[in-house]
Amino acid sequence: MDWFNQQIAQPDPVYYKKALQRQRLLTKPPGSLGKLEDLAARLAAMQGTETPSLERVRISVFAADHGISEEEVSAFPRSVTVEMVRNFSEGGAAINVLARQIDAGLEIIDAGIHRSLGLDNVIESRAGNGTDNFLKGDAMTGDQLKNAMDAGKKAVERAMLQQAQLMIGGEMGIGNTTSATAMLSALTGIDASEITGAGTGLDGRGILRKTEVIHRALHKHRLNPDNPLGILKCLGGFEIAALTGLYIQAAIQRMPVLVDGFIASVASMLAVKINSRVLPWLFYAHRSDEKGHQTVLDYLGVEPILNLQMRLGEGSGAAVAVPVLTAACALHNEMATFSQAGVSSGSG
Amino acid sequence: MDWFNQQIAQPDPVYYKKALQRQRLLTKPPGSLGKLEDLAARLAAMQGTETPSLERVRISVFAADHGISEEEVSAFPRSVTVEMVRNFSEGGAAINVLARQIDAGLEIIDAGIHRSLGLDNVIESRAGNGTDNFLKGDAMTGDQLKNAMDAGKKAVERAMLQQAQLMIGGEMGIGNTTSATAMLSALTGIDASEITGAGTGLDGRGILRKTEVIHRALHKHRLNPDNPLGILKCLGGFEIAALTGLYIQAAIQRMPVLVDGFIASVASMLAVKINSRVLPWLFYAHRSDEKGHQTVLDYLGVEPILNLQMRLGEGSGAAVAVPVLTAACALHNEMATFSQAGVSSGSG
Repeated sequence: MDWFNQQIAQPDPVYYKKALQRQRLLTKPPGSLGKLEDLAARLAAMQGTETPSLERVRISVFAADHGISEEEVSAFPRSVTVEMVRNFSEGGAAINVLARQIDAGLEIIDAGIHRSLGLDNVIESRAGNGTDNFLKGDAMTGDQLKNAMDAGKKAVERAMLQQAQLMIGGEMGIGNTTSATAMLSALTGIDASEITGAGTGLDGRGILRKTEVIHRALHKHRLNPDNPLGILKCLGGFEIAALTGLYIQAAIQRMPVLVDGFIASVASMLAVKINSRVLPWLFYAHRSDEKGHQTVLDYLGVEPILNLQMRLGEGSGAAVAVPVLTAACALHNEMATFSQAGVSSGSG
Repeated sequence: MDWFNQQIAQPDPVYYKKALQRQRLLTKPPGSLGKLEDLAARLAAMQGTETPSLERVRISVFAADHGISEEEVSAFPRSVTVEMVRNFSEGGAAINVLARQIDAGLEIIDAGIHRSLGLDNVIESRAGNGTDNFLKGDAMTGDQLKNAMDAGKKAVERAMLQQAQLMIGGEMGIGNTTSATAMLSALTGIDASEITGAGTGLDGRGILRKTEVIHRALHKHRLNPDNPLGILKCLGGFEIAALTGLYIQAAIQRMPVLVDGFIASVASMLAVKINSRVLPWLFYAHRSDEKGHQTVLDYLGVEPILNLQMRLGEGSGAAVAVPVLTAACALHNEMATFSQAGVSSGSG
């Protein structure tokens, strides 16, 4: 039996209830902190505590190349994946800036870019030199899929050693919205024309070409929507499989996760298809501007925290959402109660 | 001529344009930071710099009592205003927690609560012992209105001495959604039944009573929608007039402002009615759950940053939005450009 079929515990309902009870005692009209009240209570239940905390946030960004990029499905050349890994390594990318701003630990994982860069501060968990073009065959072998998912599992294990209280998975890989959109279509049966977006910035013609590529791939592979591992193997990317592995292992380890945008959400959908008990461990950070994202959120029945029209990936939207969760914790733990402050409670 | 009719400069369009140009050079798909790009550019234009910054944020919370509260328009007794000022003074309220979390300066101003508390850390700019019941006459005299608006002006002057880079105005006052909703109806002509909400937590019957009170007041006073000062005098609260003064003086002083929820937004609407050149100096922090807020946002044609179903006031929604603005600044200033990082730019 594979590790990702392990039993997954659920967040503790006793702490969830206790947290909501405490929220009603704080010096504010009941419910007036809106979503922050539920966020604090969910985190309390996941962490099994009355005082949820986010002092140690960990971000793992997985980069990989995609064979499908040779079909001109991106506004950027394939070389950008390798160039961006170098940029991550030098601290110049969006996620570097955001990780510094929220004081989160950041690690970059080469999950299988075109060629190894041998950089000191990039972890190599390479499942290959990029995936194969899924128009010509499977994107990866079964062994590669296992190795890629294992890269995500290992990231959780490193985070546990650091006593992280929340994990964020990010991704970088030219071509990966094509891979994710193809998988979303395979999982839901929704036609690619309804969910294929601009990715890094395709024009209308580019989006049509990308849609056509996905149509041809799905016609060729004839995938079973109830076989998420088969879909990942056929159409996936190493960084997406790594995120799927990360979400599953995080849930196994009772580690709260903040899911980023479109690619990350598709990876989380695959994780939930593999084991539905993963879902309660996931917060959704933001609604991405990438076309298919709303479909994923609707499918999972989740409401993201932010809607800032971001569509960058790297874990960037999740990093921007962290202070909202931190605020929810601080309010929950530090506000005075009506009786502590000598404030009259309401009739309402 | 009154101080609030002074000439107001506009944010510098040269810096706005420069900022958007820089955004296109950063190592990300153009536009992929969504609203964060425009937020950074607007702040650059307001601050007249290429590197917008929010190291020093200042929060001024104004508290006052409302004569209208004797009509049972709130789920909480009038005594809560005084009790909450004590809670602010002791650091136990939501805005205290949030100010600590974002490292903002926080000051509490008694703009006219029922009775002076003589607390060391509460600034007294009292326009009276609460307003009068606006069902029986004007809420305040002309002198009280000037003094209340002056309390907001002085808060900006203190913030300037502290070299604040962004101001937030907050409010506390049992009965103040009734006052704000009545003013919104007077300003727009929209019937109170369409915009009267639960405030601190009224049930359906309470909302009907509150709506009826507003109907009777508007019938009695027959206000001119183009006379915002007359509306404030008749229906306002000292803390709301203080916020109106704060927004106008901030614009005069080229100080960026982050507007909180429903009450604060109505105060900003009054400021914009007094001088339309105030509006470009305002960011809107969040969409409140209070019923009338969307009407205010639509009237002003503004899009808030967050939508977390908060409805607490005190400046709390604005404080939660600050890290989004801070993230926008950090990304703008610190990300590497394509040429710095040796990353290929796209075709898109």
